[in-house]
This record gives sequence, C-alpha cells and structure tokens, in this order.
Amino acid sequence: MEPLSEPQIAAALAELPMWSYENGKLHRTFRFRDFRDAFAFMSRGALIAEAMHHHPEWFNVYHTVKVWLVTHDAGGVTEQDLALARALSEPMSLPR
Amino acid sequence: MEPLSEPQIAAALAELPMWSYENGKLHRTFRFRDFRDAFAFMSRGALIAEAMHHHPEWFNVYHTVKVWLVTHDAGGVTEQDLALARALSEPMSLPR
Amino acid sequence: MEPLSEPQIAAALAELPMWSYENGKLHRTFRFRDFRDAFAFMSRGALIAEAMHHHPEWFNVYHTVKVWLVTHDAGGVTEQDLALARALSEPMSLPR
Amino acid sequence: MEPLSEPQIAAALAELPMWSYENGKLHRTFRFRDFRDAFAFMSRGALIAEAMHHHPEWFNVYHTVKVWLVTHDAGGVTEQDLALARALSEPMSLPR
Repeated sequence: MEPLSEPQIAAALAELPMWSYENGKLHRTFRFRDFRDAFAFMSRGALIAEAMHHHPEWFNVYHTVKVWLVTHDAGGVTEQDLALARALSEPMSLPR
Repeated sequence: MEPLSEPQIAAALAELPMWSYENGKLHRTFRFRDFRDAFAFMSRGALIAEAMHHHPEWFNVYHTVKVWLVTHDAGGVTEQDLALARALSEPMSLPR
Repeated sequence: MEPLSEPQIAAALAELPMWSYENGKLHRTFRFRDFRDAFAFMSRGALIAEAMHHHPEWFNVYHTVKVWLVTHDAGGVTEQDLALARALSEPMSLPR
Repeated sequence: MEPLSEPQIAAALAELPMWSYENGKLHRTFRFRDFRDAFAFMSRGALIAEAMHHHPEWFNVYHTVKVWLVTHDAGGVTEQDLALARALSEPMSLPR
C-alpha cells in the first residue's frame, strides 16, 4: 500500500464531506442520539474493520465517537483508509 | 408484573404493526441489508435489554433477527415486553 | 467447499468435545455467568464470522447461546464450519 | 454523588492495582491478544456502563483499550467510577 499524496487525499475528501485530514490522519467526529446508537455504530464499524483487516483509532464518550484513520505500515493515508471512511459513513439500513 | 390479557395485547399491537402475538409471546422478524447491520441492531438491543433488566429470546442468521418477548416470571406478556418491543422498533439515529 | 462425510465429521469432533453433530449441523450450547458475558462472546463471534465470510445460526436468551454451523451452499458441514467451531471455542484472552 | 478525596481514591486503588489516578480521572490501559478480544471486552463494558447509566471515556486501537473514568456531574471521581472500574476489571467467565 502506497501512501496517498495530499492532493489525492484532498480530492478523495471532496466525496467525504464530514471527514478532514488532520495531523496525517483522516478524522471525523460522529454524534448520535445516545450511547446506544453510538455503540451500535461502533459494533458495525468493528465488523467492517475486522473483515478489512484494517482497524481504526477511535475514542468514545457517551454519544460521541471520534475516528482517526491511517495506515501505519505505509506511513500515511492509503486507499484502505478511504475505503474504511466510506464504509463507516454509510447509514444503517432500516429493517424490513 | 401482571400478565396482560389478550385484548390488552391486541390493543397494544395496534401501535406495533410489525409485531404479532404467537404462542404466548410477542414476535417480530427483522431483516437488514447484511450481517453487519443485523449485528449492530443486536448490539443496540443488548444495551436496551441490559438497562431494562429484561432480555429477549432472539435468533440470528446472516441478515435476519427473530425476536420473541415474554416475561417468564409473570407467566405471560407484560408491559415490560411492550416497552422492549417499542424500544427495539425505534430506528437508529443518523449521526451528525 | 465440499461437504465432509460423517466419519470425517466424527473424527473432527473428537478435538471439539463440547460440539455434536445434529440434524446435519454442528451444534454447541454455551452457558455463561450472565447476559453480559454471553453477549461479549457473541460480539467476538460476530467479528470472527464476518472476517471468515461465514456466519452462524445462533440463538440467545440471557446467559445461554446455542450455535448451529452448516455451509448451506455446500449442502453440509465443511472445513469452514470446523474452523468457525474452533475459533468460537477459544477462550477470551485475559488483559494485560 | 460526592467526589472522593485523594486519600479515599488512593485507598480504593489499593484494591485496583492496574488502575491509576491521573489528571483527575481513574485510568487503566487494557491490552488483549487481538482486536476481537478487545472489542468483546468493550461490548461487555458497554452493557455494564449502560445498565449503570454511567459511561466511560475510552480509546481503542487494535488490541489496546484505554479507559478514563470520572463523574462529570460531580466534578471528580466518585463511588460510581470505582464501581465501574471494578466491573470492567472482572475477567470474562468461561462458558460451560
């Protein structure tokens, strides 16, 4: 995995409007109604991450989840971080 | 906790249209887009149940979650089962 | 994935003593101290399953988790079911 | 809830040897075998916290979970933080 250049990251973030590039990592803060929804989001995110073999740095308190994405092995933000950012940004499906 | 009568249960289910009363339990099948969303729903449901000290019987395979609610100590369906059915039926909040 | 023969399944179950072969599926009942530990086990199991792209049929009520494993596409129990049974049977690590 | 004095906190931490008192919060780092076990621990911790109506500040990356406990409403560490620290420190039960 090659690290992306800053222009490549900026171009990708145009499609990920809630995300920013800070201190060499992709970053977003998610705020939910309550802890339950925040932790349900984290459970779904944990399944996504484990299946990708690529894990976030994340912090939670009550209804807030802060996420930072970077590929340590590549020394920067890679396509894998963008893929994880996109997957985490997808809304939960409503049940039928 | 007193068990509800069948007319009381029928009246309550009018407000819970996806739920039915079967073999003495409240029942609903939830179907999601994929396993991830199904398990996120279960994680949220587990938090709701633990905080209520009232737990579902539930079965999962892939994107399907089948839920049965009854209050064993009361020998029937109680207000607690209705409260859990309502809470499980609430949609996940979208993050800000 | 080829389904395993009954002798192959019997040989594999010799190393999985809590599991049985019932109605064409691998089966085990796990009983924990409480709902919390049962659901923590399910969370870990969900991560294992999602990473394998192979999901259990499972039922939970309070501290009990019943698991059935079969590979529907193969029409029987396969090596993938054995791998999932082994992974679910591993104890949680203690933290340092 | 009254905040505890520093001597009270120090006395309580004698029974919680992996925890420290740092910057006005109880703190512990948990390290597990892998992400799966770390997230199973968080799922169990989320259930404990939600049932107590008292939530941690926590950070996770891969097999590491860092936890900080404080009662914001009380302006300090309270008995509730000690109770949550004790519950998070309990090992998972092995299944039968």
